[in-house]
This record gives sequence, C-alpha cells and structure tokens, in this order.
Amino acid sequence: VKRVLLTGADGFIGRELPARLEARGFEVHALRRGEHDLLRDDPAAIANAVRASHLLHLAWYAEPGKFWTAGDNLDWLAASLRLVRAFLAAGGRRVVGAGSCAEYDWSRERLDESETPLRPATLYGEAKASLYRTLAKASADLDFSFGWGRIFFPYGPEEKGERLLGGLFDAVARGERVALSQGLQRRDFIHVEDVAGAFAALLDSDLEGAVNIASGETVAVRDLAIRAARIAGAEHLLDFGARPMQAGEPPLLEAATGRLHGELGFTPKFTLDSGLRDMHARRPATLQRKA
Amino acid sequence: VKRVLLTGADGFIGRELPARLEARGFEVHALRRGEHDLLRDDPAAIANAVRASHLLHLAWYAEPGKFWTAGDNLDWLAASLRLVRAFLAAGGRRVVGAGSCAEYDWSRERLDESETPLRPATLYGEAKASLYRTLAKASADLDFSFGWGRIFFPYGPEEKGERLLGGLFDAVARGERVALSQGLQRRDFIHVEDVAGAFAALLDSDLEGAVNIASGETVAVRDLAIRAARIAGAEHLLDFGARPMQAGEPPLLEAATGRLHGELGFTPKFTLDSGLRDMHARRPATLQRKA
Repeated sequence: VKRVLLTGADGFIGRELPARLEARGFEVHALRRGEHDLLRDDPAAIANAVRASHLLHLAWYAEPGKFWTAGDNLDWLAASLRLVRAFLAAGGRRVVGAGSCAEYDWSRERLDESETPLRPATLYGEAKASLYRTLAKASADLDFSFGWGRIFFPYGPEEKGERLLGGLFDAVARGERVALSQGLQRRDFIHVEDVAGAFAALLDSDLEGAVNIASGETVAVRDLAIRAARIAGAEHLLDFGARPMQAGEPPLLEAATGRLHGELGFTPKFTLDSGLRDMHARRPATLQRKA
Repeated sequence: VKRVLLTGADGFIGRELPARLEARGFEVHALRRGEHDLLRDDPAAIANAVRASHLLHLAWYAEPGKFWTAGDNLDWLAASLRLVRAFLAAGGRRVVGAGSCAEYDWSRERLDESETPLRPATLYGEAKASLYRTLAKASADLDFSFGWGRIFFPYGPEEKGERLLGGLFDAVARGERVALSQGLQRRDFIHVEDVAGAFAALLDSDLEGAVNIASGETVAVRDLAIRAARIAGAEHLLDFGARPMQAGEPPLLEAATGRLHGELGFTPKFTLDSGLRDMHARRPATLQRKA
C-alpha cells in the first residue's frame, strides 16, 4: 500500500494535492497548520502514528515580502531534517521535497538541474538548497529514494493578495489602478494545479534528484499583467513604471524542462492564457475585498 | 562582559577550550555530553539560562569510521540550527562554528576560503557546508557576527585509538606492528592545542566567514608515520602497503592559511616534530592498552 505523509496540506500548493494523490492510489495523511505545528510537535510521534511509505514535504514559511530573509528559514530547515529522519526511522522509503528556482545562480539565464550552479542570493534559497544538498547526499548513504521539485513562479485562484496576480485581479475587481514596475523581466509562471500535478507525478515516480517545476515558457511580467488585465477587461487600470524594479532582479529566468517533460513525462494542463482565465473566473470574492 | 556558551566541551578539541577562553576574559558556560544532549534538550531553555554573548559550537557526531556517512549528520545539522536560533533569541551576538576541510572540492589541491568551491564528497562535509552556508547568509539578514573554522587534520595526545597517530603510538607502545597504506597522500596535520588556540582567537575576534585552521605545511602520511615512529624508537614496526589506499583519497590537500595567519594573526605553537613529541610524551597509558 502506498501511504503518503503530506505536509503543508492547507498551503497554496498543498491543498491541491490530496485529491490528486488519492487518484493515484495513495492513502493520504495530510498535516495542516491548524492541527499540527511542525516547528514544535515531535516528528517521531507523527511519523510513528502514520508509518507512511512516502513523504511529500511542502510545508515552509511563506509569508509574502518576509520569507526571503526571515530567520524562520532556519527553523524550517531544522524541522524538515528532523521530519525526514523520523519518517525514515518509521520505515519510510521515498522523500519528495519542495525546492525553488531561488536555489540557482540567477546570473545564469537558463536554469538547468544538472548544469546550473546552486548559488542562492537569499536566505530562503540557501536554506532550501541546503535541504536539497543534504538530503541528496543522505539518500545514497541512508538508502532512501529522493525527489526534489524546484518550483518557479506559481499563480492560482487562491493566491494571496500581496502577490502580483492576486493583487492585480483584486484591484481591478474593485476598479482600482494597479501600480507596476516596467515589468521587463521575463519569468516562467505556472498554474498551481500544474505545480500540484507535477508533485503528485514526482512522488509517484522513482525519479531521483531535482526537477524543475515550470511551464517551460517565459513571459515578460509586463505582458503577463496586460494579458491578465485584458481578461478582466481592465487594461486601462495598469500603471507601468509606477513602482521601481526591485534591486537584483535578473532580466530573464528560464526553466529547463527536459526532466519534467521528458523523464517524468508530465505535461501542464494550462497554457498561460487558459490559466489566467481560470484564475480570474475562480478567484474567491472574499479575497477581492480590501483587507 | 563576554560570556560564551561552549558546546562539545568534553570533545577532543572542546576540552582544550575553557582554559584558553578564560585566559581571554570570557566567562565560560561549557556543555558536556554527559550533562546535556543537544539532540534532545530544549535549546531555548539552555540559551535562556546562560544568556551568552558568544556561542562556540563544536559539538557534532564524530565516531571514527562512521561519521562520514551517518544519518546523525542530519540530526546535528538540525540541532545546530535550533541552537543558533535559541542563542540569538536570548540576545547572543557572535556565533563561531566548527567546519571541516571536507567541505571543499577535494579535486582542487590548494583549499582556499574565498576561491575553492564547496563540493563535499561526503554527507558529513555536506551537512557542515550546509550549516556554514545557511549561517553565513543568515548573519547578514539576522544581524549577527559569524565565524567558521575549517579544521584540517588534527592530532593530539588524547585522540582515539581508531585514528592514524593514536593507533600508531598505541601499537608501537605495545610492540605491535602497524599496518599502513603506502601513505603517499599529503595532508595538513595540526596539533589539537593549536586548533583550540585558533578557535579561541577566532571567537575573540570580529572576523567574518570561513577561516582554515591548519598548520600551513603538508606532509606525506608516510613521512608523518616515520617521524612519529622514530620519536617512539619504533620505525621498524611500520608496514607500508599492508593496507590499501582508501578510494577517493586525493593526493594532496593543502590549506591556504592567509586568513588564519594574516587576518586573524594566529601562529601555531607547535611544529610537526614538536607536536608529535608532545603527543608521544603525553599519550595517556590508558589509551595505549588494547581495547
């Protein structure tokens, strides 16, 4: 029997996972923040109660605007290591963790799992890269199977209003103007349901090591905003240049997707336009009200 | 007042520290394995009880022959991160940790803090490098001072009999032959009192980042063994070639010592010969008996 311990199950990505994992025949034990505190609970008690064969570890500190530099990254690195150890001690066999494109050296424009050096610019990226490196090395010595999904720029109906598309859709729904940078930087945006689908496929495979989780297409943030606003009939509300570019923003971050598409055999369900239409149609009205 | 929380205070290096730190004006709170278990005790309780300004964190899993690949490395990485967070939350300002030359890419022969890539071949090296990278990044975001001593090949009177010089001195004291590899690999050996002296100086400085802790001289393991055996009057007991070279042993590991000598201003007390004579003279008889 395939039994998975899923962490972060009430998070932006995690809440999309239980149904997808069950469809693949997993018995799902989901940990939600309201019920468990992975920074304080005893991971051995959790692991011994569940005795899962698989661990899909998505939980981390993710407060918009704060997570890049927060000390919480150290806490989550420590808690993640303890959880993996407890999971293995309870008989677990395969670990899949959530990484980030922020692990890579962003002075390279094409980010490839096997060729691009890991040289994170941020504490968040460094903590994620440390977890990846340590678990990748440990998987050989401690004899477990290990996959790692490096998430690029996810978006989706329920994302927080502090994020680019969430804020944009919420503002135009209220008829407000949207202050943006010039938005010339190109990024790979992927619908959260495709992120979740890729993680479910990765967990259910034997693929070892890091896999980029990305759409494979880049778009300038400016064009992304225009396409999103057009769907909402509100292109006139965009103010490009009203915000400065953030320091250190590289012009292009392109994901190599050979492993995701070729080795894992995963194909995204959404194009950028169908994904944006989905987000616009399904964005909860509660999020659109002013906080 | 300078107050230091010292971990691993009953370890091979740690036991040399309290006297040296007190001589520098530190009030020393030493954690010993017999009294504390850093893998299980609450680090906040320790940190809040001590309220140290400085943390010198030497404790780690160090069982000879096992530490390179043991899962314990994950436990110690997690415990180290938790300890640092608790120390900072209790008002701590400077953290110094114990790293290793095993963090470096050993395909390079000269290991330099600023030029040599970190590419550990082992889980031990990877866990140490992860702690270094994460704390180095965190020190900027969380505003603390951070030093990291990368220890090369320490030796000393009380080292375990499973290690090269400990085993050699013990065997010849019993009149037994010593099985060695051809010993052509060159390494940087440093007396444990010099390692301790360097850590005390590093803690008592404002130096940021990694510093190699090494003598600055390399010697072929074969010549080291001959010099040690000669001091014991037992050169005839050495059997070179009776053991195979270990797989993956690089021919040369040389330490850059510009930061240690120039920036930290530390000079080792021992030469290799005076250090070996000291080890021979002071090796406890209890260690020389067959286990």
